[in-house]
Amino acid sequence: MGSLKQGEKGKMGGDRWIRRLAALAVVGGAAFALSLPALSTAAKGKPVQKTQGDGREACYGCHDEVKALKEGSKHAGLACSVCHDNLRKHMESSGDLKPLTKIDAALCGKCHQDEYSSFFRVDYEAQARKEKGVPTGRSPMMDKLLAPYGFTFEHNEPRGHAFMVTDQFVVDRFAGGRFQYKKGWWGVDATGKTWDILEDKGADYHMAETAKAGNPTCIQCKTSDHILKWKFMGEKDRKAQWDRTSDAMAVAKDTNNPMGCIHCHDPHGAQPRIVRDALIKGVAMDGSTMFAGKDGKTDLQAIDFRGFRKIGVMKKADSRLMCAQCHVEYACGKGFEFDSGKGVGFDDPRTNHFPLTGPKDILAHYKKLNFFDFKHAVTGARLVKLQHPEAETYAGSVHDRAGVGCADCHMPILKNRQGKAFKSHMVIKPKNHVKETCLRCHPDSTVEKKLYQLDAVQNYIKGKMRKSEYWLGQLIDTYALAKRLGVDEATLARAREKHEEAHVLWEWWTAENSDGFHNPGVARESLAASIAASKEGVALLNKAMDEKAKKQ
Amino acid sequence: MGSLKQGEKGKMGGDRWIRRLAALAVVGGAAFALSLPALSTAAKGKPVQKTQGDGREACYGCHDEVKALKEGSKHAGLACSVCHDNLRKHMESSGDLKPLTKIDAALCGKCHQDEYSSFFRVDYEAQARKEKGVPTGRSPMMDKLLAPYGFTFEHNEPRGHAFMVTDQFVVDRFAGGRFQYKKGWWGVDATGKTWDILEDKGADYHMAETAKAGNPTCIQCKTSDHILKWKFMGEKDRKAQWDRTSDAMAVAKDTNNPMGCIHCHDPHGAQPRIVRDALIKGVAMDGSTMFAGKDGKTDLQAIDFRGFRKIGVMKKADSRLMCAQCHVEYACGKGFEFDSGKGVGFDDPRTNHFPLTGPKDILAHYKKLNFFDFKHAVTGARLVKLQHPEAETYAGSVHDRAGVGCADCHMPILKNRQGKAFKSHMVIKPKNHVKETCLRCHPDSTVEKKLYQLDAVQNYIKGKMRKSEYWLGQLIDTYALAKRLGVDEATLARAREKHEEAHVLWEWWTAENSDGFHNPGVARESLAASIAASKEGVALLNKAMDEKAKKQ
Amino acid sequence: MGSLKQGEKGKMGGDRWIRRLAALAVVGGAAFALSLPALSTAAKGKPVQKTQGDGREACYGCHDEVKALKEGSKHAGLACSVCHDNLRKHMESSGDLKPLTKIDAALCGKCHQDEYSSFFRVDYEAQARKEKGVPTGRSPMMDKLLAPYGFTFEHNEPRGHAFMVTDQFVVDRFAGGRFQYKKGWWGVDATGKTWDILEDKGADYHMAETAKAGNPTCIQCKTSDHILKWKFMGEKDRKAQWDRTSDAMAVAKDTNNPMGCIHCHDPHGAQPRIVRDALIKGVAMDGSTMFAGKDGKTDLQAIDFRGFRKIGVMKKADSRLMCAQCHVEYACGKGFEFDSGKGVGFDDPRTNHFPLTGPKDILAHYKKLNFFDFKHAVTGARLVKLQHPEAETYAGSVHDRAGVGCADCHMPILKNRQGKAFKSHMVIKPKNHVKETCLRCHPDSTVEKKLYQLDAVQNYIKGKMRKSEYWLGQLIDTYALAKRLGVDEATLARAREKHEEAHVLWEWWTAENSDGFHNPGVARESLAASIAASKEGVALLNKAMDEKAKKQ
Repeated sequence: MGSLKQGEKGKMGGDRWIRRLAALAVVGGAAFALSLPALSTAAKGKPVQKTQGDGREACYGCHDEVKALKEGSKHAGLACSVCHDNLRKHMESSGDLKPLTKIDAALCGKCHQDEYSSFFRVDYEAQARKEKGVPTGRSPMMDKLLAPYGFTFEHNEPRGHAFMVTDQFVVDRFAGGRFQYKKGWWGVDATGKTWDILEDKGADYHMAETAKAGNPTCIQCKTSDHILKWKFMGEKDRKAQWDRTSDAMAVAKDTNNPMGCIHCHDPHGAQPRIVRDALIKGVAMDGSTMFAGKDGKTDLQAIDFRGFRKIGVMKKADSRLMCAQCHVEYACGKGFEFDSGKGVGFDDPRTNHFPLTGPKDILAHYKKLNFFDFKHAVTGARLVKLQHPEAETYAGSVHDRAGVGCADCHMPILKNRQGKAFKSHMVIKPKNHVKETCLRCHPDSTVEKKLYQLDAVQNYIKGKMRKSEYWLGQLIDTYALAKRLGVDEATLARAREKHEEAHVLWEWWTAENSDGFHNPGVARESLAASIAASKEGVALLNKAMDEKAKKQ
Repeated sequence: MGSLKQGEKGKMGGDRWIRRLAALAVVGGAAFALSLPALSTAAKGKPVQKTQGDGREACYGCHDEVKALKEGSKHAGLACSVCHDNLRKHMESSGDLKPLTKIDAALCGKCHQDEYSSFFRVDYEAQARKEKGVPTGRSPMMDKLLAPYGFTFEHNEPRGHAFMVTDQFVVDRFAGGRFQYKKGWWGVDATGKTWDILEDKGADYHMAETAKAGNPTCIQCKTSDHILKWKFMGEKDRKAQWDRTSDAMAVAKDTNNPMGCIHCHDPHGAQPRIVRDALIKGVAMDGSTMFAGKDGKTDLQAIDFRGFRKIGVMKKADSRLMCAQCHVEYACGKGFEFDSGKGVGFDDPRTNHFPLTGPKDILAHYKKLNFFDFKHAVTGARLVKLQHPEAETYAGSVHDRAGVGCADCHMPILKNRQGKAFKSHMVIKPKNHVKETCLRCHPDSTVEKKLYQLDAVQNYIKGKMRKSEYWLGQLIDTYALAKRLGVDEATLARAREKHEEAHVLWEWWTAENSDGFHNPGVARESLAASIAASKEGVALLNKAMDEKAKKQ
Repeated sequence: MGSLKQGEKGKMGGDRWIRRLAALAVVGGAAFALSLPALSTAAKGKPVQKTQGDGREACYGCHDEVKALKEGSKHAGLACSVCHDNLRKHMESSGDLKPLTKIDAALCGKCHQDEYSSFFRVDYEAQARKEKGVPTGRSPMMDKLLAPYGFTFEHNEPRGHAFMVTDQFVVDRFAGGRFQYKKGWWGVDATGKTWDILEDKGADYHMAETAKAGNPTCIQCKTSDHILKWKFMGEKDRKAQWDRTSDAMAVAKDTNNPMGCIHCHDPHGAQPRIVRDALIKGVAMDGSTMFAGKDGKTDLQAIDFRGFRKIGVMKKADSRLMCAQCHVEYACGKGFEFDSGKGVGFDDPRTNHFPLTGPKDILAHYKKLNFFDFKHAVTGARLVKLQHPEAETYAGSVHDRAGVGCADCHMPILKNRQGKAFKSHMVIKPKNHVKETCLRCHPDSTVEKKLYQLDAVQNYIKGKMRKSEYWLGQLIDTYALAKRLGVDEATLARAREKHEEAHVLWEWWTAENSDGFHNPGVARESLAASIAASKEGVALLNKAMDEKAKKQ
């Protein structure tokens, strides 16, 4: 399953393709001129190998865009046959028979050994599978505050990228318990091919207290396997094997690998890139400036491939963008409209959407988009469940303004056994690697000092989270009693609005994975606003109950 | 207090005793033929010492059963006088004057030094006295969910066997605070004779917020001191100093040692054995197959001593049975009948009972037995308080099916200071000794890997426990409001039944000491069923309140 | 800001001053005869340096009391000009121009290097800024139980003395968020001058969910800076720059250092002393015997300076008294009267008051004083917020009776880099220094044993704290429902009284910083009484609701 037929491209002749590429190179609001040679990533100071006699000229005859990416790049020395099989048949059939494209990270790993092997290394210093809704977890009151949403069945602290597919498939809210470790719990730290680790118990298998909330869009954040099978934004297309409305279980079963190298690195030329559609749309088409540099511009060139896919290529790797392919708040499941209350299904493009905004503005954004995720079990408030909005949280923080990218703290330069430095592709917690992360920029500090400061920030924000949760709980309980005691609907509606405000300002921080460290100022402001909104809701309900009692 | 008069035996002549022994050797449903020589445990490859001239033949004249256990056994070389004093007077009086029997473990320790000293070693890696009802404990909502039961006064995480008597006597629910450490808190890690460590503040001493829930039966699980004073199942008998109805404080004051060697090892012949009456009854008489091998049979020969006591002897040590003497759910306190609601006192045999069944069937078992422990303070639901059902939980688990016994993980082979290997009789947590436990069967794994997997299982189950508790709490709160708002008794009764179901399916896991590791599959199923039952209870109460509101 | 004009003294002539000193030397109920030479602390076995020709005789001409303290003392060798500038001008002006007095600890540190540098050393083994109201904190239910008091905005675990000013100023309840770290969170472990570390965002700056609860009296516990500016008990005086009614923010801005050496050591003669006014009043004037020795007397000589200040001097350092300057329960904020309910402002001396009594009697004490801090948000009960009553808790404990002082466990003898022993002035947690603390008196014990015993005590008391909190929560919730269901005011009033009792018996232990270790017996008794009172309150409310339901 590590290779895929590359089919769609042959449908266009070479010239037509180049014209199309030129036409679509600059997309949406971001006005970059696409200069194809600029895409190459010539190795600095390292002579590019001669590449003659490997047959690539024949390929370039039709594939100019590949030539533009490849020649002069770090990958210039590789023959096309390194990543593509069936090339002879492909050419003999004039393109009708498609070549096989090998997208397995193991192929990349043949040269990039340290990066590849570190990606699949298990971080035993990080937590194992661990439920968030426990007293020491990030969201101790989750069962009350998120009822009856799917996340209440199981919502775990994050683990490394090597687990991103298997963790999602086995979690009790994804597939009703249908996918389980083959070897029982001893599969929990196994890495590799999905279906070597998991088994499918069958469509009829159902475990108590689970949900089937998986959907095709959310899988796009976990794997690169569907890169040639999924149209931009998950729209239906006869050339797309999968789209937003596909059966999530079928898509899951066709998912064999976690996110691969090609999610962030263009295979033809090794250019830094992004592939996640909703991020490309948000930045290049909808004009988000969240990742702009000091010049107010974002270093992203969005390239449209035949109206089917887009990729975004950067001149210089910006891990903020690469990571933002997944580490953002996004909508991917079914929901409802704020105004009408009617359902929003997977056919609706709102089920593949990145807001790219911060906690203060997120409710207004979703109200404008007219989309929310679920109604609260007790109050009926229209609530948004956040995903993992690290990118939005980090944007504008002290470290962001200082030019620090995600990779600087989470993918440090380590040394392999031979003493050679490499960029760790096992994403780490900086607190376990203070020397390799914090102290690189703060050389006068010490490990104990940095850990102490880090603790201080997180303890403070955790305190605010617990307060937010307490007051949300008070609002819910007071609402329940007020309703039972016959408080009027107008008051209840105002209380529900307060719940909606307070909820999202809190929930952001249970979904975001830094306990406030990425941006303590924004965290404090957001959580305090949540507390204030909850208190307002409680106060207006209590006032109504007091007045009702006086009348009786 | 380390020796006891062996009195009752002399009342029967030698022949009569042997006939009786033969007649009663095979007890109840378990159809083992008692072949006395088979009881001996000849040391493999180790020549049995000559045993002549120590006077034992005179003893054997009357005590054939001792000869059968002793000769050819590992203990064959020991003279009778090693463990018995006053033998000459005993014989000169034709048995009227009883010999003294030394049951103190220290005597065994003269030869079995490592086993003995390890039993009394304090495991400083394990937790000290620690209340379960705290946010990080096994039962954070205990005060609400178990109100008003005695365990709410103090319910601690378990400590080692050396503390089993003193821990029970000082716990705030046992004796109203009457028994305290002599040296104050510095007694908390003292081991040895009970009354060297504790003092009795007197019958009139009472501390606020305590209970006096101790009873004679529960003490039988903590000590071997009463082995000659307690009739089978704790029935009243003129030869029994203590029975189920005895004053618990008096029994306590006669308890000088924690469980000794003789709980699991027959002193005459060193055969593996069990002595706890309700387990012998459950396995040998009531036919439980919980500890059966692959052949469906349990390796246990139950021997009745003069209609007074029974012991169960094994051909091969099975730690699952030895540990199941205490590490099971059992009834030992006063309770009530499900149907009539009337009290069940200590005169009733149901107050010394091992159900030997799993969490799924335990409520049905107790309903059939017509016995429950207490009514909940708020709902009045008829609730069962579980003890420590490790044996039932483990039965049928992956490790059980692989032939792993309790001792393999909790009593590993360690080395003493001289480098000699011995079986640790300090019961340990495997997570502190992964090398000596997990890695013996999983040599290709690593300590960090095993700890990670173990954490994953326990974190997952802890998550489910917290969810169960949340929903039980919701059920209780909703019930309280529904009752105050006048919901009809029929609905309340249905809600109470849901509480009864949900309670026991949860509470099992707060009493069981592995946080699910002993059997994660059963734990998950049980806790999910608890959550489902609570939700059903909440839903029916809410529906009734909604309907009531509409009518008004 | 490290030196202050010493102004007030010159207003009296030398003789008059001496007479006044003699007249006021013995204060209140404590009948000590003040023998001035007794104040000197001659270094044992260490020859006192000759002190001629440094001009001190001229000073002594007016300042006999300084001579009495200084000559023959450990500081006898120091010229007056070491700590005072402008002496020539002072004398030339006949005292009208005041000398400058250097009170900065850095000056003391020139000789007492280890003590000085250890005071400012950060204890990275202790926790960073950390909210108490989290599940693992000392007060997980704080937001409910203390609503709506200022401490609910932020209430942290304590840190070292070097942070005592900055921690207080930045805490969210002190100044509405007006004072913040200059360097953001990286200021959290900075020590030194207050305004090198903090910035003032201005009077108009206000952060959401904060309080402005700071007051001049509470600042007196955090700094020695105001020693010459604050009249005894904080009374208004034209010579006093600050008094109880001063603007707290202005006092804060004039606070440049945490508590200095002179809080506990007299600078003229190095005598052990205390300066905190309410403690001097409590012990020397109101006759508290809390710190008395076996002879029933307290080793404290209270000296009145010109009717403006008092200091208390000890013959032998008693750290129980020195630490009790701050580590006690005290009233310092605005409150209300129990009987009339009317407000008590800063002009009232009850806003600078040390009760010096234990948890059992504290409510009666405050009822007699007719002062409470706030009304509970839900029940309206009149509640007292405790401070940090370590001294009262420790008084009469096992360790206190054995003659152990605070410093023995919290300021152990350590060795500096040169191997020289010194008394650590970084106050430590004994659990991080068991060898240097516990094992000095218990040499036969071990570190693991002591940590285990310590854990046992704290775990037990934490269990009781959680139970107290649960029952207080039940009382509050039951009250809320009872009120909504129209239960009569007489019953509600009785429930509020139960709340008042239960509250203070619990809250003491969330404010006291040892989790019960300082006195486990008193902790257990107090918390059990809290639980009992809450249960009584719940029971009477439930009974009233039951009866009301029957009538309808």
